[in-house]
Amino acid sequence: MSGKSTDHVAVVGGGVVGLSVAWRAAAAGNRVSLVDPAPASGASHVAGGMLAPLAEAWPGEEELLELGTTSLDLWPGFADELARAAGMPSGLRTDGTLMIGIDGADRGELDTVAGHLAGLGRSVTRLTGRELRKREPALGPAVRGGLEIPGDLAVDNRLALTALRAAAEAAGVEFVAERAERVRPGAVELADSELECDVAVISAGVRSGDLHPALSGAIRPVKGEILRLRRRATALPPPVRTVRGPVHGRPCYLVPRDDGGVVLGATQYEVGFDTEVTVGGVRDLLSDAETVMPGIAEYTLVEATAGLRPSTADNLPLIGWLEPGVLAATGHHRGGFLLTPVTVEAVLALLRGEEPGALIKATDPSRLGGQQ
Amino acid sequence: MSGKSTDHVAVVGGGVVGLSVAWRAAAAGNRVSLVDPAPASGASHVAGGMLAPLAEAWPGEEELLELGTTSLDLWPGFADELARAAGMPSGLRTDGTLMIGIDGADRGELDTVAGHLAGLGRSVTRLTGRELRKREPALGPAVRGGLEIPGDLAVDNRLALTALRAAAEAAGVEFVAERAERVRPGAVELADSELECDVAVISAGVRSGDLHPALSGAIRPVKGEILRLRRRATALPPPVRTVRGPVHGRPCYLVPRDDGGVVLGATQYEVGFDTEVTVGGVRDLLSDAETVMPGIAEYTLVEATAGLRPSTADNLPLIGWLEPGVLAATGHHRGGFLLTPVTVEAVLALLRGEEPGALIKATDPSRLGGQQ
Repeated sequence: MSGKSTDHVAVVGGGVVGLSVAWRAAAAGNRVSLVDPAPASGASHVAGGMLAPLAEAWPGEEELLELGTTSLDLWPGFADELARAAGMPSGLRTDGTLMIGIDGADRGELDTVAGHLAGLGRSVTRLTGRELRKREPALGPAVRGGLEIPGDLAVDNRLALTALRAAAEAAGVEFVAERAERVRPGAVELADSELECDVAVISAGVRSGDLHPALSGAIRPVKGEILRLRRRATALPPPVRTVRGPVHGRPCYLVPRDDGGVVLGATQYEVGFDTEVTVGGVRDLLSDAETVMPGIAEYTLVEATAGLRPSTADNLPLIGWLEPGVLAATGHHRGGFLLTPVTVEAVLALLRGEEPGALIKATDPSRLGGQQ
Repeated sequence: MSGKSTDHVAVVGGGVVGLSVAWRAAAAGNRVSLVDPAPASGASHVAGGMLAPLAEAWPGEEELLELGTTSLDLWPGFADELARAAGMPSGLRTDGTLMIGIDGADRGELDTVAGHLAGLGRSVTRLTGRELRKREPALGPAVRGGLEIPGDLAVDNRLALTALRAAAEAAGVEFVAERAERVRPGAVELADSELECDVAVISAGVRSGDLHPALSGAIRPVKGEILRLRRRATALPPPVRTVRGPVHGRPCYLVPRDDGGVVLGATQYEVGFDTEVTVGGVRDLLSDAETVMPGIAEYTLVEATAGLRPSTADNLPLIGWLEPGVLAATGHHRGGFLLTPVTVEAVLALLRGEEPGALIKATDPSRLGGQQ
């Protein structure tokens, strides 16, 4: 299956993937329309912005790990290009990640990750609690062991989204502030009209399943609550690195920002299309964060939000042709920011009519057994 | 000391006290200007709205108790008049209060309150945990005893503020959206101009001390963090009554609203002019609320805010002449909503040139030993 004339590309969805595809496709010479009633306001706005394929590696998910590390390698170049095109910072931070554990089961989980990565030829450094606190003095006494993963990075998701909008505008992307109802070859159906196009790209997160029959039921929303904190003048400084790991079995991360902010996440619930922040979720996040970094009690709680991760059955995204003229680039689960550079490269290649590479073959939507 | 001609009254401060004084003074025939850059946005906006002189009674604060019960008795009439004048609900709820305790020290505190009130001829009903849960099934097993105080009420502070603005506008109050810098006889000094008046009333909460030398140093800010929650469809219903009491020694209250909301408060810190919401404050509020009502974990966290209670050394407000032409009606600490009706009656009497009654004598600012 190859692309038709790619003169006019309509991208449906203005999250990190959609904005990036739109920007790069316009920069490559296409006429591009981006359809979203409120770009940069969905899961990408809520996200923590970790770029952490190694810390998230798990036996059985080797394809996802390879996709993630490939994309991570592309990030510094992507960020440079973004900063140049937008004329503002991309938000990339290159300080690396510490993965920590509290109880024996947590440390067992770290052992699994370390052993798995070693088996794949990627070594990580094991650290005692004392060695961890030497690197990050803010870590509390309950942190008993961990791993240093210098290659896992983070990006300030909101800075990046602002830059992506600016870059897309500068490249001539037309923003269509409407809600797409359906996508078919040659057109995006809006509430009262249609947007004609040569190729449509569906990057609409958890809404993608409503837009095309081949995606129906393929993407389920996984709710995540996230808190945004800010250091107060009297409080201890935040860690320099991203600190993450299981806290009594519950995933927890603290992602520092350049402005003294800390993003604290994230709960995971499968409760449908619910983006309300619950008392129980906030309680768990604060409790776990204080276990990792007791001094965070003196931080300001700036914001509590929830987003919906677009998740697939095998945790791999859906990147590829659904039918001639309709491309999917969605289903990125927790990895929207991480997987954006590799997704953009794949989509641009498909738009040029090229065959997908071996890596992207694993993401072909035809694995769903849908209507392609 | 008596008032001059009260033709033109300038009220400085648009919280519950200032708005109410302005409304009632205008309704009584005065020309009234209300000076506030953002009315209804300070401590009154953050408040929980409890009208609870009995639950807050404590030996040694008999004057405050009497002032509070007098004002509480005025509330139903005040609320009726407000609803009529504004053409909208006043927000008053008449479902009463349960005071609860968790550990032995908490229940000892309840014994002190009950004994104190009994000694003053006001009886309250002691209840076991089982009797409490019969009245409010949402209360958790850690609630071991309490008091029923049917006379202590609550008001939806934001509904009341909306109604007060409408009533003030309908009565012809002129809103001057500027910040007052100083107040002297005959004028309120603004940034670039002066507002002439016959009498100025200072109701500016924690800012009052900056406005007149007689109030300098008399009012200190006591920070309070408050959370606003909303019941989710799957969650247990909130209590019908206000539920409050010490939770392991820490004050905690849950105030239900007519719309399924619950206001959860409140921390108390003396940390100056700081209105940031801290991680530690939110953690304490959520933890105590879950002890009182475990089902609250399933509620939505809608808002986290902090306000500054304008507090005095003896916890009594400052109501009276500072000098001819300048009245104080400020320093209401945690009791701004409760004490508004009695404050308004006192201020209106003073504006008419009457001597303050015995009750209001206790609130005379001259007790500060200031410049009157």
